[in-house]
Formats: sequence, structure tokens, C-alpha cells
Amino acid sequence: MTHTPDSARATERSTALLTDKYELTMLEAALRDGTAARRVTCEVFARRLPNERRYGVVAGTDRALHAVRDFRFNEEQIAELDFLEEGTKQYLRDYRFSGQIDGYREGELYFPNSPLLTVHGTFGECVILETVLLSIMNSDSAVASAASRMVTAADGRPIIEMGSRRTHEYAAVTAARAAYLAGFSATSNMEAGFRYGIPVSGTAAHAWTLSHINEDGTPNEEAAFRSQIESLGVDTVLLVDTYDITKGVETAVRVAGPQLGGVRIDSGDLGAVTRRVRKQLDDLGNHNTQIVVSSDLDEFAIAGLRGDPVDVYGVGTSVVTGSGAPTAGMVYKIVEVEGHPVAKRSSSKRSQAGAKQSLRTYRSTGVAVEEVVFPYGEAAPDTGSLSAREITIPLMRDGEIVPGLASLEESRTYLAEARKTLPWEGLALTRDEPAVPTRMVGFKA
Amino acid sequence: MTHTPDSARATERSTALLTDKYELTMLEAALRDGTAARRVTCEVFARRLPNERRYGVVAGTDRALHAVRDFRFNEEQIAELDFLEEGTKQYLRDYRFSGQIDGYREGELYFPNSPLLTVHGTFGECVILETVLLSIMNSDSAVASAASRMVTAADGRPIIEMGSRRTHEYAAVTAARAAYLAGFSATSNMEAGFRYGIPVSGTAAHAWTLSHINEDGTPNEEAAFRSQIESLGVDTVLLVDTYDITKGVETAVRVAGPQLGGVRIDSGDLGAVTRRVRKQLDDLGNHNTQIVVSSDLDEFAIAGLRGDPVDVYGVGTSVVTGSGAPTAGMVYKIVEVEGHPVAKRSSSKRSQAGAKQSLRTYRSTGVAVEEVVFPYGEAAPDTGSLSAREITIPLMRDGEIVPGLASLEESRTYLAEARKTLPWEGLALTRDEPAVPTRMVGFKA
Repeated sequence: MTHTPDSARATERSTALLTDKYELTMLEAALRDGTAARRVTCEVFARRLPNERRYGVVAGTDRALHAVRDFRFNEEQIAELDFLEEGTKQYLRDYRFSGQIDGYREGELYFPNSPLLTVHGTFGECVILETVLLSIMNSDSAVASAASRMVTAADGRPIIEMGSRRTHEYAAVTAARAAYLAGFSATSNMEAGFRYGIPVSGTAAHAWTLSHINEDGTPNEEAAFRSQIESLGVDTVLLVDTYDITKGVETAVRVAGPQLGGVRIDSGDLGAVTRRVRKQLDDLGNHNTQIVVSSDLDEFAIAGLRGDPVDVYGVGTSVVTGSGAPTAGMVYKIVEVEGHPVAKRSSSKRSQAGAKQSLRTYRSTGVAVEEVVFPYGEAAPDTGSLSAREITIPLMRDGEIVPGLASLEESRTYLAEARKTLPWEGLALTRDEPAVPTRMVGFKA
Repeated sequence: MTHTPDSARATERSTALLTDKYELTMLEAALRDGTAARRVTCEVFARRLPNERRYGVVAGTDRALHAVRDFRFNEEQIAELDFLEEGTKQYLRDYRFSGQIDGYREGELYFPNSPLLTVHGTFGECVILETVLLSIMNSDSAVASAASRMVTAADGRPIIEMGSRRTHEYAAVTAARAAYLAGFSATSNMEAGFRYGIPVSGTAAHAWTLSHINEDGTPNEEAAFRSQIESLGVDTVLLVDTYDITKGVETAVRVAGPQLGGVRIDSGDLGAVTRRVRKQLDDLGNHNTQIVVSSDLDEFAIAGLRGDPVDVYGVGTSVVTGSGAPTAGMVYKIVEVEGHPVAKRSSSKRSQAGAKQSLRTYRSTGVAVEEVVFPYGEAAPDTGSLSAREITIPLMRDGEIVPGLASLEESRTYLAEARKTLPWEGLALTRDEPAVPTRMVGFKA
């Protein structure tokens, strides 16, 4: 499995129409009245963490930067924009984002109001990026944030992502990526392996066992197991719950012998069943045969199995749908115009005006204390005796992705380390306040 | 905006790796042991409706059929499958689904255990379609099922889909399609307009108003409104809640005059605000200026505004995420092998073995009574005094999509009519039993 980087596939399909119409009508009006040339800063942030979670995980940054770089209109697309005047069409023909993006690296922890992406450019070039930036960041971060909780709940045991079938066919591919970033071990999705170099895993479904029947239509589980082993070797994982689990395990061991790689159980009370199956396997001498469980697992179910003899978790629906939070709820707001901070003022949807950057403070033990958000480009505030680390880094300069940004593997490792900086209660699955408070410092309005 | 049908874009990207690895390992084992050639039937169905809803809406059928037709492996993809032996790779090079698919048409109502797609072919050709079929049906049906409830709640008022930013960038495009199918009036998503011919709508965001400031940085809402009207005409919709809603409405009317198309309100207690704004508009003589509301609306919020002066709803997050049910939970199960009914037997995940088809019975008033599911290819059961309609129709024959299947517009109209056949309580938003019971008739096991 070789890794085909995003960049190699960028020309396949333009991202330019993954855009809301109002961005184009705003652009046209802005070109007419001159606003299009104003220097602005727009910001991606989330007002809150979904479901009162303790932290979020930034994901999608790499995809988002590539989408911005590849945001070009071809003639076929221009031809669709019959509601725009010629000047606007020409602007779009020439469009190429030439601004700067700073923000949180992929795999970084985030909290409410963390300035995840700070996009500097002209109003014209920034306004039309809203939809594609948010689509990517919201979907990828939703999956990674849920997946990260599952990884913690699994307490070191591997988790395989197998939720492709429960989400949009291309969302499945990027969900596999986000889950891997968050610490999952592998995915079932071939395209994700192809595109992102993620380990791909899988053996057999119930259809396999059910397709092996005798001439009279009666089940022949043994034939299915024999054939699978012949094809995949004895270290394969046999699905033992098509008919009767105890008989399935017995048959599996009889056919495969002591070297059987694993058995998968996809139904029932998984705690009780795995304890029984572990005992059965051990009694049969199959001490090294692993138990793989799947069946609507989420972080709570995974945690609930912590005391049971589970070796590998397979997780589907819950991870690809963000486990109750299918979107991260991030927004893209204009925060500065020609150096002046701006913000919507009506109602409860208030937010801090002004371009921002962040640092995070830590105790000497390495535990995170606070996220300090301060005006972009200003000196970092004094953090006293606490050590501080800059969270905001350059991501794009003059429309080019900054060289040397972390690979998917590096971001995965980074997140695994970053999780260790959370206060211990930050890894709890219960609903509560963000584990690390965010403080705005040095803003005038 | 011209309509580019799926078929014209089918060659852009192969669907072949939108597949779980186990489908390919099962295929290899099946080619080795001969199972690959067995005649089987697989079925797409849902064990239950999410969140105890009363009905579901079938969506994605057209996309799914195209994905099956275009399921081909190119050499670049074959090269990735280094875990397969040469014989399997050759099978995949030659792969072309040549079987039959019957099922529910797009826009049809469905209930638990409705046989939504019945796929007949060899085990080899059917087993590798699981992921792509389910991804499409699950994501599209989840959106359409949620959207349909919103359409009912809106009670005839138009709804614009504007949720692209809250879901995966390509899921956004198909979500727009599914919402339109369910009765939404338009989408904000350009690509959806381009690809499916859906009306696209949109005017301006808060960024537009916020970008219009005076030299000293103070707001200039009036300049923003003037410029928007100059560009889009007085029948545009002005977003009036950036600063103070009452002043915003006053400014909007002063600038646009009595012909102002509409005002949009995106925050606050929408019931109270719209009543106040309606009065203000009427007092100013703007009786024809519409009120457009958005801001985290779902079917319940829409219904809650039924008595308020709302003219158009804008719905984002909730519709693209299936309003609490981001996946329809459909599964793809083998139900027949060489004419023998098969089914998993362990645990609670039981389902009816055997290939199936359906009819729906109706009272003379046109109200649906029951879904009757019976063995595929057998005579329809007697429905007594009730009229009956066949729900299962041919969708694919010998690998080719059956000509003359409904267009998106036709399916949209079909669903609007089908909703009228639900018992009146079937349109309630409360949790309850399915509105139409499903009865299995004539199965032996």
C-alpha cells in the first residue's frame, strides 16, 4: 500500500463550486463597491464543544489548506455562474488565494473560541473560502474529536475503523483519516488506504458464513472457516456469531488449531460473551487467539468493556458520525477589516473581534493550565511561572502551503502526546466544562 | 443553471475502492472455493427507523445504481491491491455487475424491514458492492428522512437548505440533493446546482455587513445594504441582525423602499423577533417584504414558528446531519443462496431470510394501511377489500439501469404525494411506532 499524497490528486476535481451562492453574490457586490480589495482577517473557531465534551481535536487542516490552494474556477464552472456579471467571472477565472493562514496544527487540542484558522487576505479572496474550509474542518474535527475519546476509552487496545457504510461514500474516506489521526489503528476502507497510506484491515462478514451451505440449504460454518483459513492463513479472524457462538468458537478452533489469529463477535452482550469465549478459548488451549468485538460500539461501550477480555475493537457508525456530534459546529467569521476589529453584536452569538493567536500554559508537570488568546502579531503576554508554548503556527504564506507541516503520522503522534497534557479529568467521558479554560487577553473591545 | 446528470460525470472517478477490505478478501476466498459463482440475493433494509420516527424516505437510489454501474477497477487501483493473488486481480479487472436489482423507488416511504434494494447476482459480484451501496443509501436517506419532517413542519412555506458548511464537502452536495428530493425549495450549494439542477439561492452573510465600516472603524450597515441592493436589486434579502435588529430593519427599508424583497434574521428568539419585525415592516408600509429566518432550525423549531410571521426558513446543520440521525442505519445482508433462504441466527440481530418484494395496501380514502412483504417472484397475497400497489420495481437488469426511472423532480413530486397517504398521526413529530406496520407474508422460515 503506497501513499498517494493529496497533492497528486488535486487536479482531479476543482473545489471551487463547493461554495455557497451568497459568497459569490457578496463577491460581486464587493467588486462593485471596492470592498473586495479591503484587507481583512477571517477566523475559524467553535463557540462551544459539542455535548459538553472536555476537549476537541483539530483535524482537516491539511485537507483544508490543499482545498484553498486548489480553489480555482475552470471554464465549465464559470459557465454555470450565469447570475454573475463578466467582471466577477474574470475575477474568478484569475482567482488564486494569495494570502496568509495561521492556525492550530492538525492533531492539536482545541477549546471553545480557540482561533483554529486565521485567514488574512482581501475580502474578495477570503469571503469565497467559507464553505469549503468549514465543510472540511467541521467534518474531520467532528470525527477526530469523537475518535480520540474512543482511543482513550480503549486504554491501549487497538481500534479498527469500519464505519464507511454508515456515512457518505467520500466522507467515509476522510473519516477513516480523521480516526487514524486520533489514534485508531486501521480502517476497513480501501480508498483511505490508497489515498492516505492508512493500514487497511478486514477479514469476513456474516455473508461469508451464510454463503456456505450444504446442497439441502443447511448451514456449513465449518466450510466457511476452512476456506477462509485456506485463503487468509490461520492467523485470520473468524466471525463466530452467525449461528451459535459457542459452537462457532469450537468449530473455529477445530479447523484452525492453536494458531488461530482471532475470533470476531458482532452481537450480544459483549461483556458476558467475551468472558465466556475467552474461557472457552483458553480451555481449548488457544491462549493467543484474540477476541475482536464490534456491534454499535461507542466510547461508552468501549469503556464499559475495559474489564473484559477484549483484544481489538471494531467501531463503525459512532465514529463516522462523531458519536452524537456529526459536526464540530465551527464557524468562519470576519474579525478584522483594514486593521479594525469587527464582530456581530446582536444576540447571544457574540464573539471576540480582532485577529488572534494563542499560546497554552503548562505546569512544570506538563499539565496544561490555560489557553491564552491574544491579538495577532502582538507580543505574547507574560505567563508568570508557567511555561508557555505557541499554539498558532504559520500554515500558508502568499497562497502556498508552508513547507514541512506535519505528516498524518506525525500529527497522530503529536495528538497522542498532547492528550497527556490534559488535566486527568479532561479524559473523562462525562459532560462537563472544557478541560482547559480559554482566556482572551489584550483585546480592547 | 443547466443540469449535468450523474452519468456525464461518472467517468471522473471510479467507485471501486469505496469498499471495505473484507469484501475483497471474501471475494478471493470465494473464488478459490467456488462460492463466488453461487447465485445469491442480498438485501438493503433497515431494522428500525431512527429515533422512533414514524416513516423514512428512500433516497440515494439513483446515485447507488450509477455507483454499481460504474464500479470498475482501473490498473492504478488494482496495483494497490497487493494482498490479493493474480486470479482475484484479474476477476476485478473484468468486473462489471451483471445482475438484477429490484427495490423501492427514490422518494418512496419506507418502514422497518422494508426490502429497499434486492440485489440478485453471483456471490462474487454482489459481495463487493456492500459498502458503496450502503454509504449512498444511508447518507442520502438520513438527510431525506429528516428533511421530509421539516417540510411537513413548515406547512407549505419554503425551506432553503444551507448546511454545506456543517458536513463533508461532498456530502454537502448530495445532502442538498436529498433535501430537495424531500421538498426543500433550494440550496445554497453551487455544486449541487451544477450537478443536479437544483435551484440555488443566497444573498449575503454577516461578513458583508461587517466589512462595511467607516474610516474610523465604526459600522456602516447602510453602506452594506445600499451596495447589496445596487448589485442584487431591491428584491434581495438583507440580513438585518448584525447590530440592532430594529435599526437594521429601519435602515433596510429606508435604503430599499417598499419593494424590499426580504429581511433575514439569524439569531435571537425568532418567534418574538419575527412578530416585532413583521409589525415594524407593516407599519413602514412594507407589507410584501418577506421575513426569512435561520439559526439552528430543526423540524421542532420550524413547527414552533408555525404561528409566527415567517415566510421562508433557512435550515443548515440539522438537515445535513439528519437531525439527530446522521445515518439511516441500513444494512446489506445476504438473504438467499442458490434458492435457499439464509439468515444470521444468533442474538437480537435476526432478520427474515429469503428474497423479498413488497406491496402497500390502502383504504378507499387513499390512506396507507399496511406494508406487505412477500417472497420475491411469488404471486402477490390477497389483500381483501383493500387496494394494493406494488412498491418493489425493477431498477437494474443485467447490470444496466432500467430506462425511464424517475428524475429527481419526479421523485420529489412522488414523495409529496406519498406523504399524503400516511395516516394523519404519521406526520406527527413525536416518537412513536412506525406509521404503517410491515407484515411478512408467505415465508417458510
